[in-house]
Amino acid sequence: MSVSKDNRTDQPAILELLEKWARSVRAKDFNGILVNHSPDILMFDLPGPLESRGIEAYRKTWDLFFPWSDDPVIFDFDEMNVEAGDDVAYVTALMRCTGTEKSGERVSLKFRLTVGLRKVDGQWIVKHEHHSIPAS
Amino acid sequence: MSVSKDNRTDQPAILELLEKWARSVRAKDFNGILVNHSPDILMFDLPGPLESRGIEAYRKTWDLFFPWSDDPVIFDFDEMNVEAGDDVAYVTALMRCTGTEKSGERVSLKFRLTVGLRKVDGQWIVKHEHHSIPAS
Repeated sequence: MSVSKDNRTDQPAILELLEKWARSVRAKDFNGILVNHSPDILMFDLPGPLESRGIEAYRKTWDLFFPWSDDPVIFDFDEMNVEAGDDVAYVTALMRCTGTEKSGERVSLKFRLTVGLRKVDGQWIVKHEHHSIPAS
Repeated sequence: MSVSKDNRTDQPAILELLEKWARSVRAKDFNGILVNHSPDILMFDLPGPLESRGIEAYRKTWDLFFPWSDDPVIFDFDEMNVEAGDDVAYVTALMRCTGTEKSGERVSLKFRLTVGLRKVDGQWIVKHEHHSIPAS
Protein backbone atom coordinates (compact mmCIF):
# COMPACT_ATOMS: atom_id res chain seq x y z
CA MET A 1 0.00 0.00 0.00
CA SER A 2 1.22 3.52 -0.75
CA VAL A 3 0.41 6.20 1.80
CA SER A 4 0.97 9.89 1.14
CA LYS A 5 1.12 12.35 4.01
CA ASP A 6 1.80 15.98 4.69
CA ASN A 7 3.49 17.02 7.93
CA ARG A 8 0.39 17.28 10.12
CA THR A 9 0.95 15.56 13.42
CA ASP A 10 -2.54 14.05 13.43
CA GLN A 11 -2.04 12.03 10.27
CA PRO A 12 -0.47 8.95 11.91
CA ALA A 13 -3.36 8.75 14.41
CA ILE A 14 -5.97 8.93 11.63
CA LEU A 15 -4.09 6.40 9.51
CA GLU A 16 -3.97 4.00 12.47
CA LEU A 17 -7.68 4.58 13.20
CA LEU A 18 -8.58 3.58 9.63
CA GLU A 19 -6.23 0.58 9.67
CA LYS A 20 -7.77 -0.64 12.95
CA TRP A 21 -11.26 -0.17 11.50
CA ALA A 22 -10.36 -2.26 8.43
CA ARG A 23 -8.79 -4.95 10.65
CA SER A 24 -12.05 -5.02 12.65
CA VAL A 25 -14.01 -5.51 9.42
CA ARG A 26 -11.74 -8.42 8.48
CA ALA A 27 -12.31 -9.90 11.98
CA LYS A 28 -16.10 -9.28 11.82
CA ASP A 29 -15.62 -7.42 15.13
CA PHE A 30 -18.60 -5.05 15.37
CA ASN A 31 -17.29 -3.30 18.49
CA GLY A 32 -14.06 -2.50 16.69
CA ILE A 33 -15.92 -1.35 13.57
CA LEU A 34 -18.12 1.06 15.56
CA VAL A 35 -15.85 2.25 18.39
CA ASN A 36 -14.61 5.47 16.73
CA HIS A 37 -17.83 6.29 14.84
CA SER A 38 -20.26 9.13 15.56
CA PRO A 39 -23.86 8.41 16.67
CA ASP A 40 -24.99 10.62 13.74
CA ILE A 41 -22.73 9.09 11.06
CA LEU A 42 -23.85 9.59 7.46
CA MET A 43 -23.10 6.48 5.35
CA PHE A 44 -23.15 6.41 1.54
CA ASP A 45 -22.64 2.66 1.06
CA LEU A 46 -21.55 0.75 -2.05
CA PRO A 47 -24.95 -0.97 -2.46
CA GLY A 48 -28.24 0.82 -1.70
CA PRO A 49 -29.93 2.54 -0.02
CA LEU A 50 -28.89 6.01 -1.21
CA GLU A 51 -27.91 6.96 2.35
CA SER A 52 -27.94 5.51 5.88
CA ARG A 53 -28.12 7.94 8.81
CA GLY A 54 -27.11 7.12 12.39
CA ILE A 55 -25.02 4.39 13.97
CA GLU A 56 -27.78 1.75 13.97
CA ALA A 57 -28.36 2.14 10.23
CA TYR A 58 -24.57 2.12 9.74
CA ARG A 59 -24.24 -1.13 11.67
CA LYS A 60 -26.87 -2.74 9.44
CA THR A 61 -24.79 -2.01 6.33
CA TRP A 62 -22.26 -4.50 7.73
CA ASP A 63 -25.03 -7.05 8.27
CA LEU A 64 -25.46 -6.83 4.48
CA PHE A 65 -21.73 -7.02 3.74
CA PHE A 66 -20.67 -10.09 5.73
CA PRO A 67 -23.07 -12.64 4.16
CA TRP A 68 -21.85 -11.43 0.72
CA SER A 69 -18.15 -11.37 1.64
CA ASP A 70 -15.69 -14.21 1.29
CA ASP A 71 -14.60 -15.81 4.56
CA PRO A 72 -11.86 -14.98 5.57
CA VAL A 73 -12.88 -11.41 4.76
CA ILE A 74 -10.86 -9.44 2.18
CA PHE A 75 -11.10 -5.69 2.97
CA ASP A 76 -7.75 -4.15 2.12
CA PHE A 77 -6.34 -0.72 1.34
CA ASP A 78 -4.40 -0.35 -1.93
CA GLU A 79 -3.82 3.38 -1.42
CA MET A 80 -4.73 5.89 1.26
CA ASN A 81 -4.29 9.65 1.60
CA VAL A 82 -4.98 11.54 4.85
CA GLU A 83 -5.82 15.27 4.57
CA ALA A 84 -5.70 16.37 8.19
CA GLY A 85 -6.46 19.79 9.64
CA ASP A 86 -6.49 20.78 13.29
CA ASP A 87 -10.10 19.69 13.90
CA VAL A 88 -11.53 18.30 10.62
CA ALA A 89 -9.94 15.70 8.33
CA TYR A 90 -10.85 13.53 5.40
CA VAL A 91 -9.32 10.38 3.97
CA THR A 92 -9.40 9.14 0.37
CA ALA A 93 -8.62 5.51 -0.42
CA LEU A 94 -8.76 2.76 -3.00
CA MET A 95 -9.71 -0.62 -1.50
CA ARG A 96 -10.43 -4.22 -2.45
CA CYS A 97 -13.01 -6.75 -1.30
CA THR A 98 -14.24 -10.10 -2.59
CA GLY A 99 -17.59 -11.86 -2.32
CA THR A 100 -20.25 -13.96 -3.98
CA GLU A 101 -23.34 -12.56 -5.77
CA LYS A 102 -26.82 -14.10 -5.42
CA SER A 103 -26.22 -15.56 -8.90
CA GLY A 104 -23.32 -17.55 -7.41
CA GLU A 105 -20.74 -15.49 -9.29
CA ARG A 106 -17.58 -14.76 -7.30
CA VAL A 107 -16.44 -11.16 -7.72
CA SER A 108 -13.41 -9.11 -6.72
CA LEU A 109 -14.20 -5.41 -6.35
CA LYS A 110 -11.85 -2.44 -6.45
CA PHE A 111 -13.74 0.41 -4.83
CA ARG A 112 -13.33 4.04 -3.74
CA LEU A 113 -13.66 5.23 -0.14
CA THR A 114 -13.87 8.75 1.28
CA VAL A 115 -14.06 9.18 5.07
CA GLY A 116 -14.86 12.42 6.95
CA LEU A 117 -13.68 12.93 10.54
CA ARG A 118 -13.89 15.54 13.30
CA LYS A 119 -11.73 15.80 16.42
CA VAL A 120 -13.92 15.78 19.55
CA ASP A 121 -12.29 16.15 22.98
CA GLY A 122 -8.91 15.21 21.51
CA GLN A 123 -10.19 12.05 19.77
CA TRP A 124 -10.81 11.68 16.01
CA ILE A 125 -14.35 10.48 15.25
CA VAL A 126 -15.67 9.16 11.92
CA LYS A 127 -18.75 11.18 10.91
CA HIS A 128 -19.04 10.13 7.26
CA GLU A 129 -18.14 7.26 4.92
CA HIS A 130 -18.70 7.13 1.17
CA HIS A 131 -18.03 3.77 -0.55
CA SER A 132 -18.63 3.27 -4.28
CA ILE A 133 -17.74 1.65 -7.57
CA PRO A 134 -18.15 3.50 -10.87
CA ALA A 135 -21.65 3.18 -12.35
CA SER A 136 -21.80 0.97 -15.43
CA MET B 1 -32.86 22.40 -0.28
CA SER B 2 -32.12 21.83 3.40
CA VAL B 3 -28.73 22.97 4.67
CA SER B 4 -27.41 22.09 8.10
CA LYS B 5 -24.55 24.08 9.61
CA ASP B 6 -22.58 24.31 12.80
CA ASN B 7 -21.31 27.69 13.95
CA ARG B 8 -18.04 27.75 12.05
CA THR B 9 -17.54 31.07 10.31
CA ASP B 10 -16.18 29.39 7.18
CA GLN B 11 -19.34 27.46 6.41
CA PRO B 12 -21.11 30.21 4.44
CA ALA B 13 -18.04 30.69 2.20
CA ILE B 14 -17.83 26.95 1.47
CA LEU B 15 -21.57 26.71 0.85
CA GLU B 16 -21.35 29.61 -1.61
CA LEU B 17 -18.30 28.05 -3.31
CA LEU B 18 -20.25 24.83 -3.92
CA GLU B 19 -23.36 26.69 -5.09
CA LYS B 20 -21.27 28.72 -7.55
CA TRP B 21 -19.62 25.53 -8.81
CA ALA B 22 -23.02 23.89 -9.41
CA ARG B 23 -24.27 27.05 -11.17
CA SER B 24 -21.17 26.90 -13.40
CA VAL B 25 -21.98 23.26 -14.23
CA ARG B 26 -25.53 24.27 -15.18
CA ALA B 27 -24.07 27.07 -17.38
CA LYS B 28 -21.42 24.71 -18.92
CA ASP B 29 -18.90 27.36 -17.79
CA PHE B 30 -15.59 25.48 -17.53
CA ASN B 31 -13.74 28.44 -16.01
CA GLY B 32 -16.31 28.61 -13.22
CA ILE B 33 -16.21 24.85 -12.70
CA LEU B 34 -12.41 24.82 -12.34
CA VAL B 35 -11.63 28.17 -10.67
CA ASN B 36 -11.54 26.93 -7.06
CA HIS B 37 -10.09 23.47 -7.78
CA SER B 38 -6.60 22.22 -6.94
CA PRO B 39 -4.12 21.25 -9.72
CA ASP B 40 -3.80 17.84 -7.97
CA ILE B 41 -7.54 17.19 -7.45
CA LEU B 42 -8.52 13.53 -6.95
CA MET B 43 -11.86 12.80 -8.66
CA PHE B 44 -13.95 9.69 -8.00
CA ASP B 45 -16.62 10.23 -10.67
CA LEU B 46 -20.05 8.64 -11.03
CA PRO B 47 -19.11 6.74 -14.21
CA GLY B 48 -15.64 5.21 -14.70
CA PRO B 49 -12.71 5.34 -14.55
CA LEU B 50 -12.10 4.33 -10.93
CA GLU B 51 -10.24 7.60 -10.32
CA SER B 52 -9.08 10.71 -12.21
CA ARG B 53 -6.01 12.58 -10.90
CA GLY B 54 -5.17 16.18 -11.71
CA ILE B 55 -7.09 19.13 -13.10
CA GLU B 56 -6.83 18.05 -16.77
CA ALA B 57 -8.32 14.63 -16.03
CA TYR B 58 -10.97 16.31 -13.87
CA ARG B 59 -11.91 18.66 -16.71
CA LYS B 60 -12.36 15.67 -19.02
CA THR B 61 -14.97 14.15 -16.69
CA TRP B 62 -17.18 17.14 -17.59
CA ASP B 63 -16.55 16.50 -21.30
CA LEU B 64 -18.24 13.13 -20.61
CA PHE B 65 -21.09 14.63 -18.59
CA PHE B 66 -22.36 17.38 -20.89
CA PRO B 67 -23.12 15.23 -23.97
CA TRP B 68 -25.11 12.89 -21.64
CA SER B 69 -26.89 15.67 -19.74
CA ASP B 70 -30.20 17.24 -20.65
CA ASP B 71 -29.99 20.80 -21.99
CA PRO B 72 -30.69 22.99 -20.02
CA VAL B 73 -28.51 21.12 -17.51
CA ILE B 74 -30.10 19.81 -14.30
CA PHE B 75 -27.44 19.65 -11.54
CA ASP B 76 -29.16 20.54 -8.29
CA PHE B 77 -28.58 20.08 -4.57
CA ASP B 78 -31.37 18.42 -2.57
CA GLU B 79 -29.39 18.51 0.69
CA MET B 80 -25.96 19.74 1.72
CA ASN B 81 -23.96 19.59 4.95
CA VAL B 82 -20.71 21.50 5.46
CA GLU B 83 -18.28 20.16 8.09
CA ALA B 84 -15.75 22.97 8.35
CA GLY B 85 -12.59 23.12 10.44
CA ASP B 86 -10.03 25.90 10.51
CA ASP B 87 -8.03 24.61 7.54
CA VAL B 88 -9.71 21.40 6.25
CA ALA B 89 -13.39 20.87 5.45
CA TYR B 90 -15.62 18.36 3.76
CA VAL B 91 -19.12 18.61 2.31
CA THR B 92 -21.72 15.85 1.96
CA ALA B 93 -24.65 16.27 -0.40
CA LEU B 94 -27.50 14.60 -2.22
CA MET B 95 -27.95 15.89 -5.77
CA ARG B 96 -30.01 15.37 -8.91
CA CYS B 97 -29.16 15.31 -12.60
CA THR B 98 -30.95 14.18 -15.76
CA GLY B 99 -29.69 12.84 -19.08
CA THR B 100 -30.07 10.39 -21.92
CA GLU B 101 -28.34 7.00 -22.12
CA LYS B 102 -26.82 5.64 -25.35
CA SER B 103 -29.89 3.39 -25.55
CA GLY B 104 -32.00 6.54 -25.87
CA GLU B 105 -33.53 6.06 -22.40
CA ARG B 106 -34.01 9.31 -20.47
CA VAL B 107 -32.97 8.96 -16.82
CA SER B 108 -33.20 11.09 -13.69
CA LEU B 109 -30.44 10.29 -11.19
CA LYS B 110 -30.34 11.00 -7.47
CA PHE B 111 -26.68 10.76 -6.50
CA ARG B 112 -24.33 11.24 -3.54
CA LEU B 113 -21.49 13.77 -3.45
CA THR B 114 -18.62 14.18 -0.97
CA VAL B 115 -16.19 17.09 -1.46
CA GLY B 116 -12.86 17.60 0.36
CA LEU B 117 -11.37 21.09 0.73
CA ARG B 118 -8.29 22.75 2.19
CA LYS B 119 -7.79 26.44 2.98
CA VAL B 120 -4.72 27.78 1.16
CA ASP B 121 -3.65 31.42 1.68
CA GLY B 122 -7.09 32.24 3.06
CA GLN B 123 -8.99 30.68 0.12
CA TRP B 124 -10.88 27.35 0.21
CA ILE B 125 -9.72 24.99 -2.56
CA VAL B 126 -11.46 21.77 -3.70
CA LYS B 127 -8.95 18.89 -3.54
CA HIS B 128 -11.34 15.94 -3.85
CA GLU B 129 -14.77 15.05 -5.24
CA HIS B 130 -16.56 11.70 -4.91
CA HIS B 131 -19.79 11.28 -6.94
CA SER B 132 -21.73 7.99 -6.95
CA ILE B 133 -24.99 6.10 -7.14
CA PRO B 134 -25.50 2.85 -5.20
CA ALA B 135 -24.31 -0.23 -7.10
CA SER B 136 -27.12 -2.42 -8.37
